[in-house]
Amino acid sequence: MDLTSPARPLSTAVNAAARLLPKQAALRLHADAGGLEVVGRDRDLSVRLTAPAITHTDGEVLVPAAPLAETLKMLDVDQVRLVVEGSRLAVRVEGARFALPLLDRGARVEPAPPPRLSEVDGGLLAAAVRTVAGTAAKDDPLPVFTGVRVQSSGDALVLTASDRYRMAVARVPLRAAWGPLDVLVPARLLTEATRHATGTLTLHADTGHFGLAWPGGTVTTAVLDAGFLSADTIPSGAVDTEVELSAATLAAAIRRVGVYAEDRRTFTLEVGDTHVRLASTRADTGEAEETLKANVSGGRTSPTFQARYLLDALAPFADTTVRLAIQPGLRACILTAAEPQEVSLTYYLMPMLR
Amino acid sequence: MDLTSPARPLSTAVNAAARLLPKQAALRLHADAGGLEVVGRDRDLSVRLTAPAITHTDGEVLVPAAPLAETLKMLDVDQVRLVVEGSRLAVRVEGARFALPLLDRGARVEPAPPPRLSEVDGGLLAAAVRTVAGTAAKDDPLPVFTGVRVQSSGDALVLTASDRYRMAVARVPLRAAWGPLDVLVPARLLTEATRHATGTLTLHADTGHFGLAWPGGTVTTAVLDAGFLSADTIPSGAVDTEVELSAATLAAAIRRVGVYAEDRRTFTLEVGDTHVRLASTRADTGEAEETLKANVSGGRTSPTFQARYLLDALAPFADTTVRLAIQPGLRACILTAAEPQEVSLTYYLMPMLR
Repeated sequence: MDLTSPARPLSTAVNAAARLLPKQAALRLHADAGGLEVVGRDRDLSVRLTAPAITHTDGEVLVPAAPLAETLKMLDVDQVRLVVEGSRLAVRVEGARFALPLLDRGARVEPAPPPRLSEVDGGLLAAAVRTVAGTAAKDDPLPVFTGVRVQSSGDALVLTASDRYRMAVARVPLRAAWGPLDVLVPARLLTEATRHATGTLTLHADTGHFGLAWPGGTVTTAVLDAGFLSADTIPSGAVDTEVELSAATLAAAIRRVGVYAEDRRTFTLEVGDTHVRLASTRADTGEAEETLKANVSGGRTSPTFQARYLLDALAPFADTTVRLAIQPGLRACILTAAEPQEVSLTYYLMPMLR
Repeated sequence: MDLTSPARPLSTAVNAAARLLPKQAALRLHADAGGLEVVGRDRDLSVRLTAPAITHTDGEVLVPAAPLAETLKMLDVDQVRLVVEGSRLAVRVEGARFALPLLDRGARVEPAPPPRLSEVDGGLLAAAVRTVAGTAAKDDPLPVFTGVRVQSSGDALVLTASDRYRMAVARVPLRAAWGPLDVLVPARLLTEATRHATGTLTLHADTGHFGLAWPGGTVTTAVLDAGFLSADTIPSGAVDTEVELSAATLAAAIRRVGVYAEDRRTFTLEVGDTHVRLASTRADTGEAEETLKANVSGGRTSPTFQARYLLDALAPFADTTVRLAIQPGLRACILTAAEPQEVSLTYYLMPMLR
């Protein structure tokens, strides 16, 4: 194998594959007239990315992923040559040579990707995944709380995740659909894979597998078999109070007032006629209160939250006006953007006992 | 006490004092026609900073430092009002009130600052301290390795610190001198204090104390009583090889080649006629070599370093050409800038046994 490749896209492809795979993974590099293919496999996962290359000699090698990725990332050059030299793959640039051991090739069985079922915009999906996947638990004995449900519904792709205390549901417009889709995908993997997805993105699935494909790449993973989350199970019919205000302003006030809250940092959103009021008291540091203008309609139900969770819930609404639909008692508070957005997000947050 | 102060300089002064003092410290705020004074004391340390203020009612209070500093830092306003309300100091801005408990006033004994001995440019001193103090040990049973020696010598202020494996010596031009100065100052404190020092800076000392004063602030600390470091004790007469090259280029190459080094990450700087060569090998990742153009004079002595330490040593020379004066055997390598700089830095780095 002998090829020359522009350094930036080569580094992007190799680093994306290395991040998706376990630390000690190997990458198979395959070069021919069509360019370079970077392929990696783990038990439940397969990754295939392409990079532009001028191939001088066709070939295929298996090398450790991590040092190749790290070396390419740190090179400050335009072109890189990859060439097999004896039992090494040499990465050559002017004045420097890095040589990786060639690993045993082993059997190469590439599973066919599952059938294509839907098509969405890669950027919109990535934005929705960032928010929804962040709501899944990092670590939970029940896999249903570590996954994102990916489901086609009418003309939208619906993403749902929850760690029991909050749930996020995003609707991304579907560009095309060839069949129904409903799978539970590991949240961490979905986040990492959509980071690299650009342009038009197709979603693939069969019993047991889920795949994403975009120009230049394919990622296929085993799905979680753990039942499904659904926002339909969350009672939302008792909303009696609605509050609209700037999400950023509310978040900044929570942070300031939180300095004066006890360790659990809970506080009550006191709903008034034209404002909400935050207050907290702590023995050693004193007390704080802030009053923020807000559009209030309905009742004056005033829920209590853990500050950290409400801040997480406000983050995806960043620079927009957020609407809080509040229900009395221990029923979820439902956050949505006041104005319609391209990705429509609904965030359910459980209040606390006062 | 009742005053109105521009938010930014008030926050700067209070946060600087809070960072210099221990976590649970209190701050004394004193307001009169001259503005606001922020004063803090610890066993070995005293801090006095000023902030502009329009004082409506003169007064003095003692409040916990941390919540006041944190609140002021998070406020997004132009003006802040500080006013005593009962047993509280209220921080008032539009729509919000934060109230800190007033602490017992206790006895107020302000020691007179030690006599003024020298004057330097605050910016130059801060730059020199950043590099030299970074060479001191964070934690060492011998206090001499956790301090910076601050010493007047002719028309320069000389700063020296070492953790035994490397030593940095910086010379900063003196603007004026009224007497000889030679003290050992805790490195962490000197770094923190000079961060806030701007404009002309005077240095003060007597037996047991060291002080820094600048427009708007004074910091006085107990000195370390632990003998003195001196670069004179480091043999430097055996230099037989001199190498000049870009510090940034050498640092980038060390990082790349380091990926292929074993865990201790040592490597040898192989000195050739018109280049230096770095190489390393590691069983599982393969091998790397880079060749960098350099001006070489004298012999070809090729020292071995720990990568991390050489990177630290190169950092202060950032965008300049660095000169390495190399001695054979286990004698220090001496790094200086090839061109004279306003702050003249000499860095001694011990090589390792090959």
